Amino acid sequence: MNLAKVLGSVVATRKEESLEGLKLLVLGIAGPDGKLGGGSVIAVDAVGAGEGEFVLYASGSSARQTRLTDCKPVDAVVMAIVDSWDVEGEVRYRKGDTE
Amino acid sequence: MNLAKVLGSVVATRKEESLEGLKLLVLGIAGPDGKLGGGSVIAVDAVGAGEGEFVLYASGSSARQTRLTDCKPVDAVVMAIVDSWDVEGEVRYRKGDTE
Amino acid sequence: MNLAKVLGSVVATRKEESLEGLKLLVLGIAGPDGKLGGGSVIAVDAVGAGEGEFVLYASGSSARQTRLTDCKPVDAVVMAIVDSWDVEGEVRYRKGDTE
Amino acid sequence: MNLAKVLGSVVATRKEESLEGLKLLVLGIAGPDGKLGGGSVIAVDAVGAGEGEFVLYASGSSARQTRLTDCKPVDAVVMAIVDSWDVEGEVRYRKGDTE
Amino acid sequence: MNLAKVLGSVVATRKEESLEGLKLLVLGIAGPDGKLGGGSVIAVDAVGAGEGEFVLYASGSSARQTRLTDCKPVDAVVMAIVDSWDVEGEVRYRKGDTE
Repeated sequence: MNLAKVLGSVVATRKEESLEGLKLLVLGIAGPDGKLGGGSVIAVDAVGAGEGEFVLYASGSSARQTRLTDCKPVDAVVMAIVDSWDVEGEVRYRKGDTE
Repeated sequence: MNLAKVLGSVVATRKEESLEGLKLLVLGIAGPDGKLGGGSVIAVDAVGAGEGEFVLYASGSSARQTRLTDCKPVDAVVMAIVDSWDVEGEVRYRKGDTE
Repeated sequence: MNLAKVLGSVVATRKEESLEGLKLLVLGIAGPDGKLGGGSVIAVDAVGAGEGEFVLYASGSSARQTRLTDCKPVDAVVMAIVDSWDVEGEVRYRKGDTE
Repeated sequence: MNLAKVLGSVVATRKEESLEGLKLLVLGIAGPDGKLGGGSVIAVDAVGAGEGEFVLYASGSSARQTRLTDCKPVDAVVMAIVDSWDVEGEVRYRKGDTE
Repeated sequence: MNLAKVLGSVVATRKEESLEGLKLLVLGIAGPDGKLGGGSVIAVDAVGAGEGEFVLYASGSSARQTRLTDCKPVDAVVMAIVDSWDVEGEVRYRKGDTE
């Protein structure tokens, strides 16, 4: 999994039928220091994430291991909203702190 | 998934039998700003995408989760045509706008 | 999938039993402009490709979706020989043209 | 698999139900010389690894081949704590040596 | 698959039970010219490879398609020892030649 920040969303009317109703998020991939710069990915939202939130996403076949994405042509899923993380004993991000 | 622009197509007569009839697109991978530069990929078209359109494609085993690609040696599939996307509250692309 | 040029082949006598009889090709990965420079990969040949030809290869679990590679420890397969491709309405490669 | 050092952990209250109770580690990916610099990944801990330890993690569908991660949206798992490794006949890391 | 050179091995006592008895090799990834520089990976040895030998390894779910690695949290396996390879009609490596 990787840390990422929700940057926005994608609208696509014409698509594989099985994707109907899924929310597609634009994610900026983040390092342990919370900085973006690791590229971006489009992921299905399985947890109700909002713009600006830090999340975890899973890639590949593992992205299909949720009720929402099972058996669908989806290779990335947001499966957790991050409250905080720490690196070497120091909190690097805590939700709600000014960023 | 990633955003990409349809750049062209590939013709291949001699191929695995199961690939018969599939359309193979040349995609330029795009970032959230809509700029190419993230490399390219060849993907099967599952939605009738046309040259110049922005699309979403899925990779890996997830690329086989469409009726067209099931059980075939295919690791990338175009599964949506993008209408628009936004980043940090701003529309970055809308189909039909001059590009 | 990616475009690639067949550069050579690999000989390996001591190997997993299930790999017996498979031809292993050295591929140089190509961009849509036909230039190499995207690294290399070793792939099983499922279509009888020859040195110097441009081909398509599939990676990951999708590389096992051919009769030759089913259930084998193989993560890349050449599944098509390319006749031609075009980018933005222009033919970038056509088999038989002087390269 | 790759070598990595456990740098910290991630807390996420709102998540896919199946992830309940899993420990999420922040890993810094290491080369054979033991130096970080190969990026980072968030992995589920399947072996009780502690901060500062060198570990092995597996990615992709292989990350679901443990009792803890089976059928869950998890694409990286720590499946071994490293005691030592050697390169060209020289020990490059041994647990307990001053680092 | 990729070409790689066996550089060393990893010892890990505390690990997923299913990994008991597997040999873990440190591989330096090689290009078609036989030079390292493409990073490294830790792979299970399925063919009895020795330090200094050039090998082929498979990644991802394909790494589980051997008797030794079936259903285990393993994402890379050495499945062949390379005798030789050629590029553009020239032998680039032959086992036993001075390297």
